[in-house]
Amino acid sequence: MNLTTTEKRVVGVDISTESTTYAIVDVRGNILVKDSIPTGDFPDVNYFVAHLSERILEMVMAHGGIETVRSVGVSSNSANFLTGCIERAPNLLWKGVVPIAAMMRDSMGLAVAIANNAHVAALAEHAFGCAHGMKNFIVVSMGSGLGSCLFSNGQVHLGSGGFAGEVGHTCLIPGGRPCGCGARGCLESYTAAAGIVQTARELLEESGQPSLMRGIDRLTPHRITDCCEQGDELAIETYRRTGRYLGIGLANYASMADPEAIIFTGGIAKAGHWLMDPAYEAFNEHVFHNVNNKVRFMLSSLEEAERGILGASVLAWEVKEYSLFKE
Amino acid sequence: MNLTTTEKRVVGVDISTESTTYAIVDVRGNILVKDSIPTGDFPDVNYFVAHLSERILEMVMAHGGIETVRSVGVSSNSANFLTGCIERAPNLLWKGVVPIAAMMRDSMGLAVAIANNAHVAALAEHAFGCAHGMKNFIVVSMGSGLGSCLFSNGQVHLGSGGFAGEVGHTCLIPGGRPCGCGARGCLESYTAAAGIVQTARELLEESGQPSLMRGIDRLTPHRITDCCEQGDELAIETYRRTGRYLGIGLANYASMADPEAIIFTGGIAKAGHWLMDPAYEAFNEHVFHNVNNKVRFMLSSLEEAERGILGASVLAWEVKEYSLFKE
Repeated sequence: MNLTTTEKRVVGVDISTESTTYAIVDVRGNILVKDSIPTGDFPDVNYFVAHLSERILEMVMAHGGIETVRSVGVSSNSANFLTGCIERAPNLLWKGVVPIAAMMRDSMGLAVAIANNAHVAALAEHAFGCAHGMKNFIVVSMGSGLGSCLFSNGQVHLGSGGFAGEVGHTCLIPGGRPCGCGARGCLESYTAAAGIVQTARELLEESGQPSLMRGIDRLTPHRITDCCEQGDELAIETYRRTGRYLGIGLANYASMADPEAIIFTGGIAKAGHWLMDPAYEAFNEHVFHNVNNKVRFMLSSLEEAERGILGASVLAWEVKEYSLFKE
Repeated sequence: MNLTTTEKRVVGVDISTESTTYAIVDVRGNILVKDSIPTGDFPDVNYFVAHLSERILEMVMAHGGIETVRSVGVSSNSANFLTGCIERAPNLLWKGVVPIAAMMRDSMGLAVAIANNAHVAALAEHAFGCAHGMKNFIVVSMGSGLGSCLFSNGQVHLGSGGFAGEVGHTCLIPGGRPCGCGARGCLESYTAAAGIVQTARELLEESGQPSLMRGIDRLTPHRITDCCEQGDELAIETYRRTGRYLGIGLANYASMADPEAIIFTGGIAKAGHWLMDPAYEAFNEHVFHNVNNKVRFMLSSLEEAERGILGASVLAWEVKEYSLFKE
């Protein structure tokens, strides 16, 4: 096979706590073939990289050969595009700073770029999702943490050290709830998974009202949403409070950034209108009046399981081609 | 005279409440000649534009002629680069939306671009000041209001509508002091001129302590600084509190933007270490740990009276040349 550069494909890799998915993707975002390995089986990152590289190369060999692949893009928690490292990831087994892009490049002989989930999600939304054609927008990823990425003038705003977008660790309530980062009152401690459950527990304690949530052994945001669907008042109030916190935090972000839209991704966003209606109301109450009612709130149009792969493929097209195997 | 484009000059205009300064500036930021008119004498913006244009053209004719001038850049409160308008400026006599760039272009036959003070200050700091060579930084202008501009990837972050940078109207204390914008608890209501004076008054009321500030008829931030210099404890405490408010507000900004530096301009920044030391301390307590102690706080190295002119000249170089008078 003799493909020109524009006919080439890239590999997209999405590393999460549970599993690492990898796929061959074409320039239009078509996933040609996809597979995964369990991330948690590899406490040693050297074995992880060796195994993942072998599996990726096997897939590539079975689907056109190494010369049809241009480069590799990787999405991971706590990844820094500027350094190519995963840095002190709280949700992965590998401690400290792991130069994973260089390790994968050396192991596979292909150019590798890495970026964090929110950055990659923004690339995916821009190329294939609901931010297509936008130059200034924010992607907020809501799950066990609250991450974000700002697109400025059609480019990702990385900041000077690649750490931009930490909206989850902006101070919402001075002296408020302790946050995993060491500070207090962070937006994340009210609007990510653990914070939402904490709000539900506080409501259950404060109120004598009956609630379906009282019968649930291990509360999760997903189960609280189920209770909302069944008309449970305290569950609805949980998301109403969470929405107001989120709306105020994002209003501050939007007053500074004046985005065209805020696009929500991640498991928490699945709470839908229970969360988004109060969030949008609080947002418009608090955002600077010039921006008021102009920022669209949108739910990502991409599938949760594919966003990381697709965004990583966009990232791969941005790195310079490099191959040990090319003539 | 027959100059090529690179030898040409531009006109920089700085519109403030009291006066409008205009100057011929070369590409290196040398101010060749400068003059001003009193802004407040022109309640009708049509007369203002006619008079200013006439004075600028006179100056240009006396210094090389119209063919030596490439374009005009204008700095003003509440100016929007994307629309070329001054929009609902609270500190100018002209109400509503004034299409001042188009009016000046039609009046002078030269290309005109306009942008707000903070945007223009950032251009000046980037070209000729302490942000030279930086790609990601924030300029904060502190005076009667609190404005800002974020440089992202070497470009001004304007946002989708040109309204980005409203850090003064981010919510610092939910339900706090009423702000001129209609909201409550805005950072500006604690850290701009009127807010600082209010903090001083609150301290004078709370405390029975003697203070030099008690003898001052009309308190201003400048007079409070004077009292600090004389060792007045309540004056020092006024700036300590203001600094903590400012530090927390800017920590939120920096957690999102990860800037290399925050550069302070405007009259309030003259309070120097009385304000900046507590601000920097609170900033590093609250900013996300990846950014902690990495962001430099800098005082602008440009003269207050020249920054607007210089930044407006940089803006002028960015617009496409246009002249009714050219052959």
